[in-house]
Amino acid sequence: MHPGASAIVALSDDGRVLIERQFRYPMGREYLEIPAGKIDHGESPIQTAQRELLEETGYTARQWAALTQIHPAIGFSNEVIHLFLAADLTRHERGVQLDQGELIETQWMQPDVLVDAVRAGRLPDVKTQIGIMHLDRMLRGEWAWPDFHEV
Amino acid sequence: MHPGASAIVALSDDGRVLIERQFRYPMGREYLEIPAGKIDHGESPIQTAQRELLEETGYTARQWAALTQIHPAIGFSNEVIHLFLAADLTRHERGVQLDQGELIETQWMQPDVLVDAVRAGRLPDVKTQIGIMHLDRMLRGEWAWPDFHEV
Repeated sequence: MHPGASAIVALSDDGRVLIERQFRYPMGREYLEIPAGKIDHGESPIQTAQRELLEETGYTARQWAALTQIHPAIGFSNEVIHLFLAADLTRHERGVQLDQGELIETQWMQPDVLVDAVRAGRLPDVKTQIGIMHLDRMLRGEWAWPDFHEV
Repeated sequence: MHPGASAIVALSDDGRVLIERQFRYPMGREYLEIPAGKIDHGESPIQTAQRELLEETGYTARQWAALTQIHPAIGFSNEVIHLFLAADLTRHERGVQLDQGELIETQWMQPDVLVDAVRAGRLPDVKTQIGIMHLDRMLRGEWAWPDFHEV
């Protein structure tokens, strides 16, 4: 039984996306990823998203929306990743609190640059690729934005 | 060490996509999926794609192109899924040969219907969602098609 995970497409006021650069040991290489993490016992998916955003990037967000859910391993696991949109971000005084062994750098990236990275095969992490492709549809006005709620 | 897998976006001459409806035990529900399967010992990814397309759907394809690679579980596995495009399909006399326990129905679906399913959250399988979103970009003329090779 996989506990599930949450991942966050976090937007700056000028429309950039918060991206982590992280070394992933199972693959032996670095990835560009959206912030994400496993759901802890007793947490709801949105609580996990809020906790991970703060721990991994040092940001809190006032506006949250459920984006979609993805199933990365339907052949052998019941893992579900809950994707959220987060906006109206503020840097928290507590700052980043990484788990042991985590090495994460964050940067703000333009959605267009990330879509180009998808096309070129440089964004193979599935949660990140899917989050960016949904975001791009909404930015282009082709898909409706989900409802944001103040948290 | 995960052996990797191959998945196939197979196109009919009139532009529809070959989609499987399959019950997935780990999730306890049915999914719409593109054909896919694990790489057997000694196989190249394209050989796996050709074998799985035939076994699961009864089709062979004369035209093949590498689409992209995705990494579904970078936090805990080195799994890579190689996505291919296949065109110029013919029904093979041998027909479908499912593994034990596999229950697969196939159908041809319009790309637009599949993109709508992505938006509505009804295509949560990551290889399928990503394959369809790449295909849609190419059908819209926004991304270049990869080179097809006769097999």
